[in-house]
Amino acid sequence: MKKLSLVIAILAIAGSLQAQELSNFASRGSRPVISPEIQGDSVTFRLKADYATVVKLSGSWMANPYGGTVDMTRGENNIWSVKLLLPAPEIYTYNFVVDGVAVNDPQNVLVQRDGTRYLPMLFVPGERSENYVEATKHGTVSHPWYDSKILGYSRRLTVYTPYGYEANPKKKYPVLYLLHGAGGDEEAWISMGRTAQIMDNLIEKGLAEPMIVVMPNGNPGQQAARTLNIPEKNINWRSEEFRNAYVNSLCTEIVPFIEKNFRVIAKPESRAIAGLSMGGGHTISASILYPQLFDYICPLSAAGQATPEQIANLKKAGVKLYFLACGDSDFLFEGSKALDKTLTEQGLDHTFFVSDGGHTWSNWRLYLNTFARLLFK
Amino acid sequence: MKKLSLVIAILAIAGSLQAQELSNFASRGSRPVISPEIQGDSVTFRLKADYATVVKLSGSWMANPYGGTVDMTRGENNIWSVKLLLPAPEIYTYNFVVDGVAVNDPQNVLVQRDGTRYLPMLFVPGERSENYVEATKHGTVSHPWYDSKILGYSRRLTVYTPYGYEANPKKKYPVLYLLHGAGGDEEAWISMGRTAQIMDNLIEKGLAEPMIVVMPNGNPGQQAARTLNIPEKNINWRSEEFRNAYVNSLCTEIVPFIEKNFRVIAKPESRAIAGLSMGGGHTISASILYPQLFDYICPLSAAGQATPEQIANLKKAGVKLYFLACGDSDFLFEGSKALDKTLTEQGLDHTFFVSDGGHTWSNWRLYLNTFARLLFK
Repeated sequence: MKKLSLVIAILAIAGSLQAQELSNFASRGSRPVISPEIQGDSVTFRLKADYATVVKLSGSWMANPYGGTVDMTRGENNIWSVKLLLPAPEIYTYNFVVDGVAVNDPQNVLVQRDGTRYLPMLFVPGERSENYVEATKHGTVSHPWYDSKILGYSRRLTVYTPYGYEANPKKKYPVLYLLHGAGGDEEAWISMGRTAQIMDNLIEKGLAEPMIVVMPNGNPGQQAARTLNIPEKNINWRSEEFRNAYVNSLCTEIVPFIEKNFRVIAKPESRAIAGLSMGGGHTISASILYPQLFDYICPLSAAGQATPEQIANLKKAGVKLYFLACGDSDFLFEGSKALDKTLTEQGLDHTFFVSDGGHTWSNWRLYLNTFARLLFK
Repeated sequence: MKKLSLVIAILAIAGSLQAQELSNFASRGSRPVISPEIQGDSVTFRLKADYATVVKLSGSWMANPYGGTVDMTRGENNIWSVKLLLPAPEIYTYNFVVDGVAVNDPQNVLVQRDGTRYLPMLFVPGERSENYVEATKHGTVSHPWYDSKILGYSRRLTVYTPYGYEANPKKKYPVLYLLHGAGGDEEAWISMGRTAQIMDNLIEKGLAEPMIVVMPNGNPGQQAARTLNIPEKNINWRSEEFRNAYVNSLCTEIVPFIEKNFRVIAKPESRAIAGLSMGGGHTISASILYPQLFDYICPLSAAGQATPEQIANLKKAGVKLYFLACGDSDFLFEGSKALDKTLTEQGLDHTFFVSDGGHTWSNWRLYLNTFARLLFK
């Protein structure tokens, strides 16, 4: 095998040339810039920009509710920088603004996908964010497609199966159906929501039951997260005919697909549904239209309501957990308060979990990290 | 269910506010800019940049081998643009350069991930690229983790199972092990290589056998594609002790893991191995170190060599297909020619597939789209 050393030598050369189309990067061969750099209670952001006139940093933590900007200063070698107080433990997003144009941080490998946008992440470690990083034992994330007769095409799902699923071929699991908001798709809860990491950590620490998590695409006109030639249906989904098409597909197509193709406990007490914003509306609709299906119901920052009669029906069908969550500065907070009132008036035992802040992934990660511990117990 | 109309109304509001941290985008509320726009045999790129002094477009197709730039012109409303002749059918990458800084195209939802970089894609339809778009029937892409005793941690894999895998629970499939280059990870062949689309199309058209494709992470120091706190091993992988650690893990850990957890035909005639650049070196090493394991061997733009004795051994072990491919301007082309010569001298039947161009994903997609049709037949 001695001649393999030639292989190794060539590999060493190839290693530096592997990446395709290197010239897509503007500044090549320059000294590495470190960004972001956390030191004690500060964080420094840096960007090399030789010919820029004004460079700013825009960060999601800088002002409420949706961020702000600060100026950066040109330093040696045209490296612009700004040093800030480290915000509280969480995952934030940011970008540079170079002469008015949004620019991602070329030094930061941590990127989250928000539909059509890719945003650099600032991770600040601490108690609040400890379950957002990789655990030791990992579940499997897969992307099967299910055929929807209701919506008219095959559609992509994201499915998390917990650590041990493959190694225990006789074990059956409960299922959480986890729904995104109007701007998201079947990758939102995995990318921005850190669902795989949160579930891996909670299960590894014994804080949550091992469960399967199913994350469908909740925009009925969308076949899947957008990529080449994925068609979108040109249908008025708000018309009377299609109004509940997606929720019907979820409850009568996706649930059976999952129960056929994964090892699940196919009973109401082993089914949970949760969703944020529009997905919170879907959660409420599913619980009203199919009151027998889910025993665990978690509307998060929900865009949705239910009448007293609907809640009475749901109570009759049986609910093991009703976990309603919203930020106190969320633009939908009044709606959550109204739903809390209806639930109280109808005597449906529930939790109204009110957090600081608004309509943000920071809150939705917190909610998942909270209610997942309460499921199937 | 009439009260659900309130839900719908709130959904309509939520739809426009769903995305988190909107202010991360610099230009908000402005009229939509279309980019890239293909019209006949031209393509126009546009970027709104109010305060920029110089804006260029950098594209992977503009010059050989790794791209070039052209100037863009400021137009009405500070929308910079450039109209170019449409390049030949393929997938290209590009970005803007604003006052010297690389900027992604905020209008383009098509993005490919290259390790730490996210690059906008230009898709030019045509015969060469027809298998790079979504087919009608889709396989499943999953990300299981395997435990590596050799490398010292659990590591993430990408696995493609063909359409029908779930619906035919007794059918067993052959397996292609598909390896990336030094700059890549277990997502490279899925993102840049379009493996799921190529396999879906070839299988749907009856041009390739239904098969499982396994895409491991070929950098032994890497546990997985980089994300929060994924550790990297601080080991000299080129030392004598660890030289073939990854190839050993592939052949003695990953292959058994796949054959235990997926429905595969566990025989040499149902195993193929292919890899690009460093992965081509891994392919050659695996065929030399484990000559009985794979009957189909495809080194692509390979960083690797084999001695006459090693090829003679391999020939003795039996080979159904040896598909060697390289671009004629690839910096590794001389190495491929040398390997072709050794194979010829040793009388090992093989194909030497020489394409135009260099060390690029354009070529690696072409090679997969070519040799996948020849496997397991």
